[in-house]
Amino acid sequence: MSKLLQDVVGELSKLPGVGRRTALRLAIHILRMEPESVGDMTRSIDRFRSEVKYCARCNNLSDEEVCPICADRERDRSTICVVEQVADVLSIENTRQYKGLYHVLGGVISPMQGIAPSDLKIDLLCDRIAQGGVKEVILAISTSVEGETTLFYLMSRLRHYPGLKVTSIARGIGFGDELEYVDELTITHALMNRREIE
Amino acid sequence: MSKLLQDVVGELSKLPGVGRRTALRLAIHILRMEPESVGDMTRSIDRFRSEVKYCARCNNLSDEEVCPICADRERDRSTICVVEQVADVLSIENTRQYKGLYHVLGGVISPMQGIAPSDLKIDLLCDRIAQGGVKEVILAISTSVEGETTLFYLMSRLRHYPGLKVTSIARGIGFGDELEYVDELTITHALMNRREIE
Repeated sequence: MSKLLQDVVGELSKLPGVGRRTALRLAIHILRMEPESVGDMTRSIDRFRSEVKYCARCNNLSDEEVCPICADRERDRSTICVVEQVADVLSIENTRQYKGLYHVLGGVISPMQGIAPSDLKIDLLCDRIAQGGVKEVILAISTSVEGETTLFYLMSRLRHYPGLKVTSIARGIGFGDELEYVDELTITHALMNRREIE
Repeated sequence: MSKLLQDVVGELSKLPGVGRRTALRLAIHILRMEPESVGDMTRSIDRFRSEVKYCARCNNLSDEEVCPICADRERDRSTICVVEQVADVLSIENTRQYKGLYHVLGGVISPMQGIAPSDLKIDLLCDRIAQGGVKEVILAISTSVEGETTLFYLMSRLRHYPGLKVTSIARGIGFGDELEYVDELTITHALMNRREIE
């Protein structure tokens, strides 16, 4: 086997969800791509890794000191939606329904994985709130054990800001989900939080 | 959304089997990798694309003019196994059972996709046989319509070499396959080519 092929397959296999077979398929595809396209791809990866920054305010990925969302004067600066990771910001942005700001924690509290509250951007969140102007904090944290732990910890910290409204995104049956396959906890929660049809 | 992130997601989405969601997951993973590891990966991709060659004898991927298999004096030079693509060579090599040489066609004849016999390395195969010393050509071509067309075309070309044995790899029920889910053509073939248990 060609050493060059072996190297590229080995390197691509390090990516998540990419086994040796997929890596080989990707390598064969790369071979068929124009050399310029391959150059564009590898350059974008290198630039992304070396130049991307974290927004000094919300910890979202950013090309500048402050991300476009935090810099956008049109957005509602009185609302902050707290999420675990960068991908969550994109998911919410894709709905085009939310006009407030974000705050990316960078994970959840996990004693098992050695992630303490101090490893997350919680102090930065509190600093933002302390500066004033924030009326509501929406917690959009996952419902895992670690997520719930993080939620309770955040609640305990945010309680110290008088007048601050703290909300959590609604839990329930997703659109398109079949009741048959939804877990019991979600169904219980959805039943308890049932709404009158108007 | 960060322009750098947007770029890298766009570039990675061009790879086969990688949608925007997977590309985003890969980008986030790349962000967590050591900068040196990212550099190693992109360098190996660039080097692979720009430096890898095709073996002048068998058309397999190679770092040199002639690939390690063709250059290996230990291999049986009287047998050539004809395959469609580079990945097939690796699949057969992984069995560690085959000691002959290979010939990579680079595809199959496909009028639909505009691939004619002249687009494949068939002349190169005939040249190798014409040089003498080859006793058997094993055709390991897929059983698709295009594969069968290619097989018949190859047979018609190889008929011109007297004394050359042309074989095809055995078709049948794969190990671990359940008869219930095997297609009828394969079962018919497997029945017709049944073997006496010794």
